[in-house]
Amino acid sequence: MTETIDLTMSTLRKMYARGTKPADVVATLVKRIKQDQHRHAWIYVEDERVLKERCDELDQRLQRGDDLPLFGIPFGVKDNIDAGQMPTSAACPEFTYRAEKPSRAVELLVGKGAICIGKTNLDQFATGLSGARSPYGVCASVQNADYISGGSSSGSAVAVAAGHVAFALGTDTGGSGRIPAGFNGIVGVKPTLGKVSLRGVVPNCLTLDVVSVFANNVSDGAEVLQAMSGYDADDPYSKSPPPMPAVGTTFTFGRLSRRDLEFFGMEECRALYESACDRLAAIGWRPMEIDFAPFREAGRLMFEGPWIAERKSALRAFASAHPGALLDVTQRVLSVADRFSAVDAFDGIHALAQLKRKTEQTFAAIDVLLVPTAPRPYRVADMLANPIELNSQVGYYTHFAHMLDLCAVAVPNGMLSIGVPMGVTFLAPAWHDERVAALANQFEQSEA
Amino acid sequence: MTETIDLTMSTLRKMYARGTKPADVVATLVKRIKQDQHRHAWIYVEDERVLKERCDELDQRLQRGDDLPLFGIPFGVKDNIDAGQMPTSAACPEFTYRAEKPSRAVELLVGKGAICIGKTNLDQFATGLSGARSPYGVCASVQNADYISGGSSSGSAVAVAAGHVAFALGTDTGGSGRIPAGFNGIVGVKPTLGKVSLRGVVPNCLTLDVVSVFANNVSDGAEVLQAMSGYDADDPYSKSPPPMPAVGTTFTFGRLSRRDLEFFGMEECRALYESACDRLAAIGWRPMEIDFAPFREAGRLMFEGPWIAERKSALRAFASAHPGALLDVTQRVLSVADRFSAVDAFDGIHALAQLKRKTEQTFAAIDVLLVPTAPRPYRVADMLANPIELNSQVGYYTHFAHMLDLCAVAVPNGMLSIGVPMGVTFLAPAWHDERVAALANQFEQSEA
Repeated sequence: MTETIDLTMSTLRKMYARGTKPADVVATLVKRIKQDQHRHAWIYVEDERVLKERCDELDQRLQRGDDLPLFGIPFGVKDNIDAGQMPTSAACPEFTYRAEKPSRAVELLVGKGAICIGKTNLDQFATGLSGARSPYGVCASVQNADYISGGSSSGSAVAVAAGHVAFALGTDTGGSGRIPAGFNGIVGVKPTLGKVSLRGVVPNCLTLDVVSVFANNVSDGAEVLQAMSGYDADDPYSKSPPPMPAVGTTFTFGRLSRRDLEFFGMEECRALYESACDRLAAIGWRPMEIDFAPFREAGRLMFEGPWIAERKSALRAFASAHPGALLDVTQRVLSVADRFSAVDAFDGIHALAQLKRKTEQTFAAIDVLLVPTAPRPYRVADMLANPIELNSQVGYYTHFAHMLDLCAVAVPNGMLSIGVPMGVTFLAPAWHDERVAALANQFEQSEA
Repeated sequence: MTETIDLTMSTLRKMYARGTKPADVVATLVKRIKQDQHRHAWIYVEDERVLKERCDELDQRLQRGDDLPLFGIPFGVKDNIDAGQMPTSAACPEFTYRAEKPSRAVELLVGKGAICIGKTNLDQFATGLSGARSPYGVCASVQNADYISGGSSSGSAVAVAAGHVAFALGTDTGGSGRIPAGFNGIVGVKPTLGKVSLRGVVPNCLTLDVVSVFANNVSDGAEVLQAMSGYDADDPYSKSPPPMPAVGTTFTFGRLSRRDLEFFGMEECRALYESACDRLAAIGWRPMEIDFAPFREAGRLMFEGPWIAERKSALRAFASAHPGALLDVTQRVLSVADRFSAVDAFDGIHALAQLKRKTEQTFAAIDVLLVPTAPRPYRVADMLANPIELNSQVGYYTHFAHMLDLCAVAVPNGMLSIGVPMGVTFLAPAWHDERVAALANQFEQSEA
């Protein structure tokens, strides 16, 4: 075993086929995680003896002939998702509890042979897109420590990008499963609402939350998503997939016009987006400029409109019982909720219904929408100094997705001169998850 | 032509097949409507010359060979639904406007040959279940004028029950398409949310509103519903039907236990409900007692919880621009909305998601749920004296339906000793409309 394992699932499978034991892989990874403590990626790492036992049990299950499609694949779990008997903190020490049983998603993955190494850092209660809102330390981009990792699933993205695990679970409400994939140069797969059970996940905006996947490539991410998908009658937000029409062979992608693109002062990001469009054109996809206004408006409704009250709905009991337990920034974000009345909430629901119809018409003309994953990266120091305004800017291309019931895959798209990676995100209507992954995979395989 | 026409659609079709002209039928009906002005069923009746022209055009279309499945079927339209160039008032004189074009539902029906006679009375802005909340006069049960007609689609139900039209459109948000069917001894068909376009309908609770049908029998009601159904991209609340599984041949119906049945002091109503259960058992259906608690709780959320703010969302712009235009009772109902915050609204949405899962499990074990259409009738005088509390009681078996995304058919079920008819309602999950109609039809055909 060396200190640098290629953690793509295909490589791990080759190693296991040649006789490597999961226990050896896991031991190496735990060593690396310890060396990397300055990255603040993990809130809890499972005891090494417990991990050894798990790996040995796994070997026995394999010998018994159990079906273990994810045999020995090590993964991390964002610390707002229950995993076995490990503690769940949501990055709020006073909130911490020891889960009685795993979340449905973790249960499915472990049942198929994956090994959960521990729990990863996040913006407290998944509120934020920066990675700089945790009492367990700030997460920075693995490629440039001056810049934010993106959040709220900061630790999960860093853990994958730093080679600690083969994949990691995140959650995504307004971009938390995509933004940190972009700033760490990895893949983020954000499923359709209701595709993965929310049982055992700390609620954020229950009607807009999903469990997402960070992985080294689209194929791994899509496989993990499939492995943890499925209707769950015990999750009120779980949905059954509708039958999907067959897929064509030529593709039209929606792209933003020059007018709609926004990079908040970092023009170099524009060139990266244009290069992604060129890559798609080069493999034969037809570009079509779309009207971004209804998408932008839906995003605004989420973070500047009444939906902020949905976050407060999830947290108000805990927050009022534990004054002072929330970070100041979390508290500030939630305080805005009180501005909105129930009439405002229904006004927003009605406005959203109108916007959704407009974007459905957009998707009737395209196979997939291509946007930058984030407009630009920010330095950690700038984010800490101006946490709310910059956070809102970071979500410019992500906030709308759940409001409009879209699924998404974020993929790497090159490096800025400052040494921070940038991504693009493919989006399509609900239940097009496999199709979006197939299209993102075509992009990933194309010449940069 | 006599003064008493049997207005079932099959009889009308026989008359037309034998040479009767629609203009003759319509002239007779307009005469009857004029004689019946004391019933306050109509807010606007189309000019007789205009109606004559329409009938003549219809004859010409028939001769041209147009496909007119509803040829010459006369109908009324609740006055919160646009119909051609007729005025729409929502029973609020200051609100009245002349529609530029018909609602999508009326457009489809007229296109298929039906003749719109005029606009019917309602509880102002469809807020109420009594028929006693209109500046155009109180509607009473056609069978006993001391008692309420039920509402809010009071005029539509009275118009059908009094023999003014073959069918009438209503709207239903919390029971308005079912309650007045029950108290007038006719059929009320309340479709699945999103099945009939809401384009051209005055909004009440946009996420919970449907266009419904009052008819003389289930077959007529189901046919009209089918004729006006269809996805409409211009209505943000319109939905496409999913594929439906095949129907079995033996049926289990859910029924309420003695503990859950509530008749607010009129025990004679219990015997009528039990007799309906006996009728179903006699035709071979298996009864199963269900837990009514989650249904009742969903109903409470609608009328005592934050959804009242959805009504206010639709009306606040008009109400603030026209102080004094609303009836005092409408104003009082809406004033409750201000008690609820946006956080309360999302709390309610989350509570409802849990309740919906429970009732889905109930429906997994039964084909259809049978409830009384209303617990009991009330005298007009009592309703006027205590409009809000009694209104809430009247909706005990209807409020929950849209919150839980159910479709329903209300059918007559006998007469109380006071001479007021009572109905029962069949309910099933969304998109089971045809199935519920088929089952209600079996009940209708069975021996009372």
